Amino acid sequence: MKLTVTEAIGLAVRALTRHGMSEPHARLVAEHLVDAALCGHEFSSLPRVPTIIEELRRKPPAGDVRVVRESATSALIDGGDNIAYVVSIAAIDKAIEICKKSGVAIVGVNNTWFSGRLSYYVERAARQGYVAMHTTNTTARVAPFGGIDRVMGTNPFAIAFPSEDDPLVIDIGTATTTWGHVLLSKAKGEALHPGVAIDSGGRPTVDPDAAVAGAFLPWGGHRGSGLSLAVQLLGILAGSAVVVEDVRNWGLFFLVFDPGLLMPGDEFRSRVSEMRKVINTTRPAPGTVKVRAPGDGSVQHRKHAAAAGVIQLDDRVYARILELSA
Amino acid sequence: MKLTVTEAIGLAVRALTRHGMSEPHARLVAEHLVDAALCGHEFSSLPRVPTIIEELRRKPPAGDVRVVRESATSALIDGGDNIAYVVSIAAIDKAIEICKKSGVAIVGVNNTWFSGRLSYYVERAARQGYVAMHTTNTTARVAPFGGIDRVMGTNPFAIAFPSEDDPLVIDIGTATTTWGHVLLSKAKGEALHPGVAIDSGGRPTVDPDAAVAGAFLPWGGHRGSGLSLAVQLLGILAGSAVVVEDVRNWGLFFLVFDPGLLMPGDEFRSRVSEMRKVINTTRPAPGTVKVRAPGDGSVQHRKHAAAAGVIQLDDRVYARILELSA
Repeated sequence: MKLTVTEAIGLAVRALTRHGMSEPHARLVAEHLVDAALCGHEFSSLPRVPTIIEELRRKPPAGDVRVVRESATSALIDGGDNIAYVVSIAAIDKAIEICKKSGVAIVGVNNTWFSGRLSYYVERAARQGYVAMHTTNTTARVAPFGGIDRVMGTNPFAIAFPSEDDPLVIDIGTATTTWGHVLLSKAKGEALHPGVAIDSGGRPTVDPDAAVAGAFLPWGGHRGSGLSLAVQLLGILAGSAVVVEDVRNWGLFFLVFDPGLLMPGDEFRSRVSEMRKVINTTRPAPGTVKVRAPGDGSVQHRKHAAAAGVIQLDDRVYARILELSA
Repeated sequence: MKLTVTEAIGLAVRALTRHGMSEPHARLVAEHLVDAALCGHEFSSLPRVPTIIEELRRKPPAGDVRVVRESATSALIDGGDNIAYVVSIAAIDKAIEICKKSGVAIVGVNNTWFSGRLSYYVERAARQGYVAMHTTNTTARVAPFGGIDRVMGTNPFAIAFPSEDDPLVIDIGTATTTWGHVLLSKAKGEALHPGVAIDSGGRPTVDPDAAVAGAFLPWGGHRGSGLSLAVQLLGILAGSAVVVEDVRNWGLFFLVFDPGLLMPGDEFRSRVSEMRKVINTTRPAPGTVKVRAPGDGSVQHRKHAAAAGVIQLDDRVYARILELSA
């Protein structure tokens, strides 16, 4: 089915507030989820609402989001066990505020969970002319390269650069699969792709339950595993546990800086656009029509979807969210 | 053959100064190269001397390394077309100096070339208690994912964290091969590994000459290619060309910050050590004896080699460097 953007936001807000989330927080989450739909990332969109509500039901009411430590170049935020969709907006806005005075900001966040698409937050800063890097460690699901115990999260890494047009956003996970994909496979009764998970004895598995009891594999061999470890350590610095055993207290790290520290901002934006064009005009390999820069697909999907003003939603997901709103 | 550390440094210094490099600069380069040998990275060690000299012969005399732009949180350095082995030491030390006052520093460097092991610079900062991230874009050799034209460098990325023992250093390239490895294969008349390069028509090749005329492939599919692009854009911000066509004017980016901004430094170092231990005590996968954290191999190799006080050097490389010193 199709929903207008306004209808979709309203739907998510009603379901989330029905389960104890404040209206302003529910609106931030809903806007993020609907943006994911506009960008064509169906799984990161409204289908997340039931999963978020399941987590809300399990938890005591959230506290306040508080800046607990601050300097001229940094802030540490206690997320009050609020969902990271909300806390990360506070964090990136705090980073931008610091950056306006000092040119660069480091912000750490702990006591939070479920972060959505990291690109959403870094893009927010890049639209205001900043370079923004953001990492999140998550519940331990991933074995390090060469090992079979789950000790790291799926640990995404994102960085955004302002350009003359839409920001250029690079947003990558450091595991071969995601928690969301494994959950979805389980719900649909489908097997995982081979090579993405091992069972608790370290044997390759395509069974979602066995993968959850065992571990997901890191992406990209020892290099991807190293990147995942870097994200883990930045999360630890932000105050997460060394190994995160449950869905809480993830460690979020934000770096935002003004490119004007090194080069006039308009000149940098022009060069980012130029580099994007270099990528797009590279001769394509056999089987590729046009070479895309990271995020090109999302940006184009959003332009079309936003012009139409509607998003697609699976009928069953719609019914489930309605049910949760009752 | 075996050389003591002092002999090896002397050998490199004599050859480099013979070709116009100042004695203090030659010493910095030599210390870096000998450290690579101690860490067991033979190719990054004294075999680089003839390649560096070849480049020195091609270039006009280098100018001064100058800070051309500075703020309370940043610096931009013109490398004066000096080798990056030298300029990066000035850059990381400048970053540390800024960091001592402001807690965080962004430093960009341009007008430089050949950077050595990035881990060398970030480790220097981490030994003083800082977290340091460093990227370098290099001469265009790598095609973006889905494309066949070389537009990005081999673009390494490194990050180091202080611990209670040696810093934990993650240092990864973002191409499937390195310029050095391709050069070495060519010199030895050996084929490249399959899957690392394409010729100028975009066809897979194992011929080093065809790979140099064509392109190396990015590591890790679209994700690794995205990371390479991020390094490219940080290099551009530091003042490199958008596409770097020759061996000069690479763009180096440094971020150094005090973990004390977010957490007491000794507490963070203790947690980094704890995370390293978690990795090391993870149950190994079949075929792995012990799970290593990134850099473990280098650190252990260096401990043994430094205790013995000697490095290994290929006889032919030794003869060639002696010849270049004459």
